[in-house]
Amino acid sequence: MPLPERVSGVLAPVVTPFHKDLSPDPERLIAHCRWLLSQDVGLAVFGTNSEANSLSVPERMELLERLVEAGIDPSRMMPGTGCCSLSDSVTLTRHAVEAGCAGVLMLPPFYYKGVSDEGLFRSFAEVIERVGSADLRVYLYHIPPVSQVGIPVELVERLTRAYPEIVAGIKDSSGDWDNTRALIEHGGANFRVFSGSESFLLRNLEAGGAGCISATANVNPAAIRRLYELWKTPAAGKLQEDLDELRSCLQMPVMIPALKAVLASFLDDPEWETVRPPLMPLGRQRVNELRQRLAELEFSMPGLAPPSSPSP
Amino acid sequence: MPLPERVSGVLAPVVTPFHKDLSPDPERLIAHCRWLLSQDVGLAVFGTNSEANSLSVPERMELLERLVEAGIDPSRMMPGTGCCSLSDSVTLTRHAVEAGCAGVLMLPPFYYKGVSDEGLFRSFAEVIERVGSADLRVYLYHIPPVSQVGIPVELVERLTRAYPEIVAGIKDSSGDWDNTRALIEHGGANFRVFSGSESFLLRNLEAGGAGCISATANVNPAAIRRLYELWKTPAAGKLQEDLDELRSCLQMPVMIPALKAVLASFLDDPEWETVRPPLMPLGRQRVNELRQRLAELEFSMPGLAPPSSPSP
Repeated sequence: MPLPERVSGVLAPVVTPFHKDLSPDPERLIAHCRWLLSQDVGLAVFGTNSEANSLSVPERMELLERLVEAGIDPSRMMPGTGCCSLSDSVTLTRHAVEAGCAGVLMLPPFYYKGVSDEGLFRSFAEVIERVGSADLRVYLYHIPPVSQVGIPVELVERLTRAYPEIVAGIKDSSGDWDNTRALIEHGGANFRVFSGSESFLLRNLEAGGAGCISATANVNPAAIRRLYELWKTPAAGKLQEDLDELRSCLQMPVMIPALKAVLASFLDDPEWETVRPPLMPLGRQRVNELRQRLAELEFSMPGLAPPSSPSP
Repeated sequence: MPLPERVSGVLAPVVTPFHKDLSPDPERLIAHCRWLLSQDVGLAVFGTNSEANSLSVPERMELLERLVEAGIDPSRMMPGTGCCSLSDSVTLTRHAVEAGCAGVLMLPPFYYKGVSDEGLFRSFAEVIERVGSADLRVYLYHIPPVSQVGIPVELVERLTRAYPEIVAGIKDSSGDWDNTRALIEHGGANFRVFSGSESFLLRNLEAGGAGCISATANVNPAAIRRLYELWKTPAAGKLQEDLDELRSCLQMPVMIPALKAVLASFLDDPEWETVRPPLMPLGRQRVNELRQRLAELEFSMPGLAPPSSPSP
């Protein structure tokens, strides 16, 4: 079997739908993933914007299995598998490899603060060694504003030296362009650097980056993908501006409730607004303001459709 | 069946021993818990200092079951059960109640930052409602230096109003004495406020607090317990000074490797030094320095003994 290609392009950290009783809703998730694939963006399921850290390990594994059973191509998937617990990260990473996923997006263990780079190196190394598969591709996940525990450039270099085939790239959600640039410069030719927001997409591609994995790709995938395809053309500057304008409507400390509100609104499906605590739904007034701003931008979601069969 | 008493006194957030292959070691844990109970301190198993956040849900449940099977009294236990994931917190809390534990020590969900008090209230409320047991006693766990997500006094008040029988107390590891005092003042007569360090034990008891849950109780339980018993006597000031002096030997950003090094040293059992990444063992030089300082203080651990049968 050939080794899996490394990932590039645009991926959505797929939002996870819940029923009113807060149980995960595989049918709505399958429908959403189908729509995202139809827009030519990959599936970074179980990321920060997926509320994955509010899910249990068995819940994540069952959802992944349901997606694959429904015919969603695992080679378009990069599930998040990095947990506080070494055992959980190993379990989820092994499961993703066995499911045939293109790669995994791996947070560092994020509970203990002030840990050493040596300790973080050992964390990633233990997962890689215990999974022990040549098919594993690890994309590191650097998101210090949320996880607080980051992955410094020196640690990235050490990991790619130790595991040049396995450690394949990184998602940089630091919001710090200098850090993203340093990762591209130090990572080597085949190291895939994704910006964590489409705000950096054009700059990232111009500098040699691989694409972006961005929350807004849940609702605005085609336009982000279009910039990815046309970044070398004169249209790129205007496409980036349009992306930034739309993002400004959705930007808030936690974007998930807004993304779900947009999906609920365009699908006329209020259940999509459900979030697990500690998150809270956006509330009527802010939903209405958001709808109005999106209408002013003539925002649309072509091809969006509910699950083909009623959700159980 | 009478409702469980609320907890007071001194508890150790019990360090979790690992085998060299990083699997949890129930035999050494049982032996350590037996020694701690012999020193008259309770067992806050699966806290921050237990590396509980580096354990999976099944690993925690199995260890708790092994402790109970070994005859460790669950009414002396306050296992940590608060996780990022709502489902995990429910699973662990229900399991602890069914095992007959005196209470649970509950972190707020700590991955998402900048969440609202309403979202945190809902997090705790969902766990309490889903467990749905009159036997549940929740001790909230406020440790902002590590979890980053704290539990403000106003939220504590709201939770005690909503669940006056269930929400029984708090461990305050903020290191902020004003916060501890505010919790004692606002919590009501039967609300149990534990300081997260024995450095605050005398002040906490003088102000009406319930005791402490402190990492150093893993190695220095008798002396801490002695201050708890004698805090109204003229000896209290000196006892507090002695505790502070010993603590200063162990104090470091993450105390766990030092605690394990002390146990390894006094048990002549190097395997006790094993920590799960992202933590790292203390290293020979720092272990030697620590041993020397403890020798200068004539520190001892009377009655400490290895497991009665060899660890598998």
